[in-house]
Amino acid sequence: MSFEFELVASDGKARAGILHTPHGQIPTPVFAPVGTAATVKAIPPKDLEALDVNLILSNTYHLMLRPGDELIRDLGGLHEFMRWSGPILTDSGGFQLFSLAQISKIDDDGVTFRSHLDGSAKRLDPASSMRIQQNLGADIIMAFDQCPAPDDRAEVERAIARTHRWLVACREAHPDDTRQALFGIVQGGVFPDLRSQSAAFVTSLDLKGYAIGGLAVGETKAEMAAMLDHTMPRLPNDRPRYLMGVGEPDDLVEGILRGVDIFDCVIPTRLARHAAAFTHQGRINLRNAKYRTDESPIDCRLNNYAGQFSRAYLRHLVIAKELLAHYLLSLHNIDFLVSHVANMRQAIIDGCLRDYAKKFLAEYLQ
Amino acid sequence: MSFEFELVASDGKARAGILHTPHGQIPTPVFAPVGTAATVKAIPPKDLEALDVNLILSNTYHLMLRPGDELIRDLGGLHEFMRWSGPILTDSGGFQLFSLAQISKIDDDGVTFRSHLDGSAKRLDPASSMRIQQNLGADIIMAFDQCPAPDDRAEVERAIARTHRWLVACREAHPDDTRQALFGIVQGGVFPDLRSQSAAFVTSLDLKGYAIGGLAVGETKAEMAAMLDHTMPRLPNDRPRYLMGVGEPDDLVEGILRGVDIFDCVIPTRLARHAAAFTHQGRINLRNAKYRTDESPIDCRLNNYAGQFSRAYLRHLVIAKELLAHYLLSLHNIDFLVSHVANMRQAIIDGCLRDYAKKFLAEYLQ
Repeated sequence: MSFEFELVASDGKARAGILHTPHGQIPTPVFAPVGTAATVKAIPPKDLEALDVNLILSNTYHLMLRPGDELIRDLGGLHEFMRWSGPILTDSGGFQLFSLAQISKIDDDGVTFRSHLDGSAKRLDPASSMRIQQNLGADIIMAFDQCPAPDDRAEVERAIARTHRWLVACREAHPDDTRQALFGIVQGGVFPDLRSQSAAFVTSLDLKGYAIGGLAVGETKAEMAAMLDHTMPRLPNDRPRYLMGVGEPDDLVEGILRGVDIFDCVIPTRLARHAAAFTHQGRINLRNAKYRTDESPIDCRLNNYAGQFSRAYLRHLVIAKELLAHYLLSLHNIDFLVSHVANMRQAIIDGCLRDYAKKFLAEYLQ
Repeated sequence: MSFEFELVASDGKARAGILHTPHGQIPTPVFAPVGTAATVKAIPPKDLEALDVNLILSNTYHLMLRPGDELIRDLGGLHEFMRWSGPILTDSGGFQLFSLAQISKIDDDGVTFRSHLDGSAKRLDPASSMRIQQNLGADIIMAFDQCPAPDDRAEVERAIARTHRWLVACREAHPDDTRQALFGIVQGGVFPDLRSQSAAFVTSLDLKGYAIGGLAVGETKAEMAAMLDHTMPRLPNDRPRYLMGVGEPDDLVEGILRGVDIFDCVIPTRLARHAAAFTHQGRINLRNAKYRTDESPIDCRLNNYAGQFSRAYLRHLVIAKELLAHYLLSLHNIDFLVSHVANMRQAIIDGCLRDYAKKFLAEYLQ
């Protein structure tokens, strides 16, 4: 029953479910912290377990370059390599490739680029993305797609044509979902008709799950909401829906209200490295001098280990550039998002998601 | 019964004891990791507890400059500030001052210097070192001393004269050991007669414990051993003896064989930041390409969390400059030294320290 998606409850368009994987069940909605280079930055896997993290994402682009997907395969796969026994999702490499690498050539079959690490020439295409993700061995693997600037219609049209062609090639290179499930990605920028066209094509392949790509890449929050409103009804109810790269606390609310089941984002660990922390009253920065003598925890409504420390101590660690600051702030920020999504899941089950959302947003965006 | 020192067993000159403090018992011999800026770099206090760390050291010089000892006092003291409930020892500030700060003037009453952080003018003397250490609130506080180059006789003579004068002033400024015990420091460089003279003076003050300072500062290992052989019999048997700044695994053996009870050193966390790890077969560097595919743990004889990861994974973290490398390697190195000292304590109780030492050194120094 791997990759069976069990719907437990719904509340409006929002749903609570369970996604079964070879490495355990994922209660949905779920927020996945990102472990780019086979590590969620600064956080040992045991602490992720203690926070009830149920899914992590790792990056194909980074791992193919360093330490190399074949090495990870030879060492038993990503779960074994990084000692994380829960579910893992890998992206296709496409997104990082377009944002980090120097692209030499995009053609209808794939992308030739130079590594951002050493400048060496590389190529990714549907077959190699599948082979690399098979070597890594994540539970959920993503189709190789092209993520264009969202408001350039001609560019978006070219990108969805390629994305669809590449999806077919990915399915051919990965025909069997028994151990790893292939998810397809709907593109279409901010254009409703292109989103419709992409959703129709991608869902015609009857995949284990569907992602909405090409959002949270520079469009407005209203545009993102409009695209979700338009696209979600075009995805089958009985498959998980994944909104890629989204993790702002208010965006998680908007996504879940519209029926999104899976999210991932680097934001909790990236903010931590910039001394920022989520609170129910909005984001704060521990570098601020006003926390110098503040004996309260970052957010007294959370219950993780970082909450044992005062803002004054955390500020000291930040100012003194101490490594422990990364650990404690990352732990806090991950817990904030994971708890927030878990609270929404419970609210869906209790039939009061709209209330939770209203109260949360009123306080968070005040 | 605070600061009572209970001798449990002895084996040759080596002893196993228990030092009672207001924050718990310290089984001795003990190795104290260093938390320079009120944090043992990269390691949360809960993980230190799990490793059976029984004492940590923190630095007066660093904390007086940042975040300031009065702030720490106002926030409840160092234990409360850094959420470490076990025993803490603070140094006097002298050693860092001579190694890090730009000294403006040393006179017979104290030292005027410029902060290495912002160049501001500061002064430390016996009374201010005591006041700062009282503000920090460590269990064991150290007398303000001058640590000279060990082989310049004229300089060492001047330094011990000051160290003795300053010790008397420290005792006057800290007359009561009820909550914090003042330890004195024997200086004397590599000169046996000066060590004798210093030991005689320092022990005449009947303090709760005695440190041997001015070693591990550039002299040879043979010179260090000779100074220990000469000085230890001149310290009273019923007080703990602290060899400052020593932490190499073989130096711990030599110190314990000669009756040292307390050690501290930055080496486990500093080595970790340079990708180096202790093993029973000597020190290794995880950056080395030969560990690329090595599935074994750093040292299979240890039992800490870092031991769950392969050398291949640790090498990947090091090469990718991932924060988790600092955590796992620091955890490993601290456990190595703490376990090593705990094994020696057990060997003293079992009457087989010499065997343990011989086997350990043969393997470690091979």
